[in-house]
Amino acid sequence: MRLLAATDFSLRLLIRLAETPTRHRSTEHLAQAIGVPRNHVHKIVQDLAEAGFVRTIRGAQGGVMLAQPAAAIRIGAVVRHLERAQSLVECFRPDGGACCMSPECRLRATLARAHEAFLASLDSTSLEECLPAGGMQYMVGDALA
Amino acid sequence: MRLLAATDFSLRLLIRLAETPTRHRSTEHLAQAIGVPRNHVHKIVQDLAEAGFVRTIRGAQGGVMLAQPAAAIRIGAVVRHLERAQSLVECFRPDGGACCMSPECRLRATLARAHEAFLASLDSTSLEECLPAGGMQYMVGDALA
Repeated sequence: MRLLAATDFSLRLLIRLAETPTRHRSTEHLAQAIGVPRNHVHKIVQDLAEAGFVRTIRGAQGGVMLAQPAAAIRIGAVVRHLERAQSLVECFRPDGGACCMSPECRLRATLARAHEAFLASLDSTSLEECLPAGGMQYMVGDALA
Repeated sequence: MRLLAATDFSLRLLIRLAETPTRHRSTEHLAQAIGVPRNHVHKIVQDLAEAGFVRTIRGAQGGVMLAQPAAAIRIGAVVRHLERAQSLVECFRPDGGACCMSPECRLRATLARAHEAFLASLDSTSLEECLPAGGMQYMVGDALA
């Protein structure tokens, strides 16, 4: 079972932004901070901005910052958004795939329940709770603002 | 989130074998039954046999059949085996990956819990329970044998 590399990178980026929630970060800074090429970061930021997790500000003083407090962002919501075009197996594809065992197969419902259990587990954790231990003291005020 | 195509194909194959648990099926028959090229089926059967889910018998009357009753095979056990070389994200790799955020990151534990919730959900379902509804009547005796 794999998540997209873009999902991995996006979660890293959100954690780095959550560490300094009042500061805009440049794409270049973020690329270095998460160890990912800058062109990847640009795409990731666009996707996260469209979903309302981050906001971008143009200009010399601009950059990227969280659009919501880290305590309000559920990891499940982020992963649901980033993996929205992925299909767990062929029959989960929007077009139904071409599996010759549909529609009588009952494996699909079994996999769908497990998939939902995975996401429900992630829903129980906020971005704030993923920050490095001891790294939150200076931003509690921001997170609650 | 995706499973390997080989996992998808293997689950299909096990369902087809579970439908006629007392009969050996040829690789060619199975390839047609699950809609997958024969060379894929050969590899899948080898992997499932090594894990003790199926057994193979050589010769003209040989073929592949379940090595355990369908009611005794948990979908979670099958998926754990088939996805054993997969890493959910980079830091789940056996070598630890190269993510610059380790080791202080707490996302890993969050993802590990969700991964386990996915597998635990699959553990709650047997292969027998994935068979097409109404397709079990003729094999109850075999499954309990």
